[in-house]
Amino acid sequence: MKIAIYPGSFDPPTMGHLDIIRRASKITDKLIVAILYNPNKTNPMFSIKDRKKMLNLIINDLDNVEVDFFEGLLVDYAVKKQAKIIVKGLRAISDFESEFQMALTNRKLAPQVETVFMMTNDKYSFLSSSVVKEIMEFGGCIDDLVPEKVKEFIGEKAKNESLF
Amino acid sequence: MKIAIYPGSFDPPTMGHLDIIRRASKITDKLIVAILYNPNKTNPMFSIKDRKKMLNLIINDLDNVEVDFFEGLLVDYAVKKQAKIIVKGLRAISDFESEFQMALTNRKLAPQVETVFMMTNDKYSFLSSSVVKEIMEFGGCIDDLVPEKVKEFIGEKAKNESLF
Amino acid sequence: MKIAIYPGSFDPPTMGHLDIIRRASKITDKLIVAILYNPNKTNPMFSIKDRKKMLNLIINDLDNVEVDFFEGLLVDYAVKKQAKIIVKGLRAISDFESEFQMALTNRKLAPQVETVFMMTNDKYSFLSSSVVKEIMEFGGCIDDLVPEKVKEFIGEKAKNESLF
Amino acid sequence: MKIAIYPGSFDPPTMGHLDIIRRASKITDKLIVAILYNPNKTNPMFSIKDRKKMLNLIINDLDNVEVDFFEGLLVDYAVKKQAKIIVKGLRAISDFESEFQMALTNRKLAPQVETVFMMTNDKYSFLSSSVVKEIMEFGGCIDDLVPEKVKEFIGEKAKNESLF
Amino acid sequence: MKIAIYPGSFDPPTMGHLDIIRRASKITDKLIVAILYNPNKTNPMFSIKDRKKMLNLIINDLDNVEVDFFEGLLVDYAVKKQAKIIVKGLRAISDFESEFQMALTNRKLAPQVETVFMMTNDKYSFLSSSVVKEIMEFGGCIDDLVPEKVKEFIGEKAKNESLF
Amino acid sequence: MKIAIYPGSFDPPTMGHLDIIRRASKITDKLIVAILYNPNKTNPMFSIKDRKKMLNLIINDLDNVEVDFFEGLLVDYAVKKQAKIIVKGLRAISDFESEFQMALTNRKLAPQVETVFMMTNDKYSFLSSSVVKEIMEFGGCIDDLVPEKVKEFIGEKAKNESLF
Repeated sequence: MKIAIYPGSFDPPTMGHLDIIRRASKITDKLIVAILYNPNKTNPMFSIKDRKKMLNLIINDLDNVEVDFFEGLLVDYAVKKQAKIIVKGLRAISDFESEFQMALTNRKLAPQVETVFMMTNDKYSFLSSSVVKEIMEFGGCIDDLVPEKVKEFIGEKAKNESLF
Repeated sequence: MKIAIYPGSFDPPTMGHLDIIRRASKITDKLIVAILYNPNKTNPMFSIKDRKKMLNLIINDLDNVEVDFFEGLLVDYAVKKQAKIIVKGLRAISDFESEFQMALTNRKLAPQVETVFMMTNDKYSFLSSSVVKEIMEFGGCIDDLVPEKVKEFIGEKAKNESLF
Repeated sequence: MKIAIYPGSFDPPTMGHLDIIRRASKITDKLIVAILYNPNKTNPMFSIKDRKKMLNLIINDLDNVEVDFFEGLLVDYAVKKQAKIIVKGLRAISDFESEFQMALTNRKLAPQVETVFMMTNDKYSFLSSSVVKEIMEFGGCIDDLVPEKVKEFIGEKAKNESLF
Repeated sequence: MKIAIYPGSFDPPTMGHLDIIRRASKITDKLIVAILYNPNKTNPMFSIKDRKKMLNLIINDLDNVEVDFFEGLLVDYAVKKQAKIIVKGLRAISDFESEFQMALTNRKLAPQVETVFMMTNDKYSFLSSSVVKEIMEFGGCIDDLVPEKVKEFIGEKAKNESLF
Repeated sequence: MKIAIYPGSFDPPTMGHLDIIRRASKITDKLIVAILYNPNKTNPMFSIKDRKKMLNLIINDLDNVEVDFFEGLLVDYAVKKQAKIIVKGLRAISDFESEFQMALTNRKLAPQVETVFMMTNDKYSFLSSSVVKEIMEFGGCIDDLVPEKVKEFIGEKAKNESLF
Repeated sequence: MKIAIYPGSFDPPTMGHLDIIRRASKITDKLIVAILYNPNKTNPMFSIKDRKKMLNLIINDLDNVEVDFFEGLLVDYAVKKQAKIIVKGLRAISDFESEFQMALTNRKLAPQVETVFMMTNDKYSFLSSSVVKEIMEFGGCIDDLVPEKVKEFIGEKAKNESLF
């Protein structure tokens, strides 16, 4: 059984993330959406717990997908999960260089785990979590940028606490 | 009447900025040089007020150019100013990817505002405000990197206060 | 009055071309869509006459756009037409390097003519006349790749003669 | 059962091709190495028949891989073969732009077929069939550039006929 | 006598650095490996003193190489050392744009000093000090990523103090 | 004694070529400007003999530079000439990918020969022999694009024969 991991910060999950999750779930036997927990990174907008909630909301119609989080090296996590594949989204406009560097580093550390790149739908080629956060910060509209259920979750959360 | 906005940090304005301002003023009816005020960005070298002064010093022979500043989303500002065009300078050596991402994001938020890219003179292809600041920090010479009047302004300022 | 030229081979015109024509017509006073006639290039699919017909079919609702063709250097043609602006479409996936080289060459030859780059709609980022021709060659479907009227024109033409 | 296609000219197959075939065979259920037969392309070095022979020589220890050839649009072939995946090798030094354009075109034509990119071993990042052919033309040594069995096949062939 | 400078942070020195040092030492008369001391940069992993020790450990079989450090503008240091050449390593995956910007800035400041780019061995194309530090942080293995003697030095150091 | 080779087609030599020749001659002991003779390439504008004449005209004030031509693999020629260095010009706008591929191929074939990249003056970043030829073809002005003596040579030649 071929297990694949789709790692990321998902802070918050975007339409681009959902697009890759859907595509990847069709060509793998099992897909683990894995939130990277980095204790050194400062100031995430959402907690790991909230990000997990949002991801679970948007994948609940996909049978072979589950959500998890990990700390430490991605390849160690992949080996632990017996995953042979790391899935990364590639946008026409994306940091291809840094993605490639990461993939080669991971191959060096764990040659048995293969990184495969999938293309995001071109209508999301500009989209990233940072873009969403920046627009939110200035009060812009994030319709079509994040899945409907993520938008609702964020709206609920914003009622009770300040996100910035 | 076609109004265009040339946004930036201009911290400080460089010869590259002036080059784009001159070019853009020739092909637009009115050009607004708009300083982005970002309260979250730490440690600008010059205050908005000083940047405005410097820009006004270098555009005073250009009839259809004015200097302004804005806070928040660029597209909201553009709509408020009834501008149909955002002008961005493109250097052979520049972060083309991030410029493109920003432009696509802006189009998504305000489809009626068009981003156009103009080429900076190739002799300024290496030049940015960061380069100028770094050279100043180490006591290097910034002749030919910033307009003469900007250099004088900085010189005066440095007499009275420490810039670093 | 600001005149702009949008040059190209348009062999045949695509949805990407039409997208740029519409955008450019909104921010210029007059737009000349100029077909490059290159006697040295071998094997165009359509004659200059046919390309002119197709372009005229798709711009007929745009008041400030006209179709023309030229031979020789683009900048000589621009000067003759008193155009100050050359418009080029920029796709996230495009030969940015060669576009930039051409633009710098043109600036060297005629500094008074400015090249401005506009972004094609991202849903056409893969699209070019070559792609259309290749798909036609193998009998693929070109719906959504060329404007409806261009498709009809090509269909009519294909009835009477072999295009390959 | 997930079927994948690895398309190419393989004129001749290189160590880089073999590297991708091995990697791809590990993460797919069945891999079809598909030689593109293009009647319009002039001057292949090897016939389809010879390329098929060479590929079969190098994949004979891989149970889930088979060699085939196709004419026409890749996506039509993929649909015919019920393949859901197109595999492409991505080198740090490769025509990423044109690969991406092709992949987006294919997605437009057949949305149900997914293109995934895999990274070639970095020691083959410079390697392509063209490089091999050019070195052969000038009498250079192609050890380590093509698989041993391909080298033998080419050597045998060169005894009996002129390859250039 | 042609003197060349190979500048960097070397925090810590990697196999990629050593590769460039060896290559550059063969084509220059004298090579100065120069550690950039930047008082503004926060949180180096190793002190200048330790970095100098590590570099000296790995160059001790190279007669025409010496280790030094500098503060301020690189070109000022080059002029002081009567060096005509700045050597930079270029990886297929590297920030080519920012390297080029730096090189052009340096040429503007000191036209008599020439920057030359050399290619790192492709098996180190993913490697940088940051990658090494990140792997160390998560307890990954840095064999083959740093020279043997650097690894021993780091191991000794880690016994006596916390590196993070 | 360090011998370097600067290879190219030089059809014709441009200001960009001369710029690299001057820079490279300052940091090498001996520089061989080597014209690639490729019997398979069709339609050069100038014969090897004419290109050699033009190059000799522009290097005659440089003591450590000589002009030669070669056929076959560059690295074989380099070894024959006991050259340790291949010099390539790198423009901000240039086919960096293909240059890198060539350099890695050459390293594979002859590891003892090192390729170094030097930056062309940014004012020639758009310039190539092809650009010069295209402008000449359409009767444009090539002042500042080729060295004065090359321009004279071409002018003389054009009097006696048709160049196209």
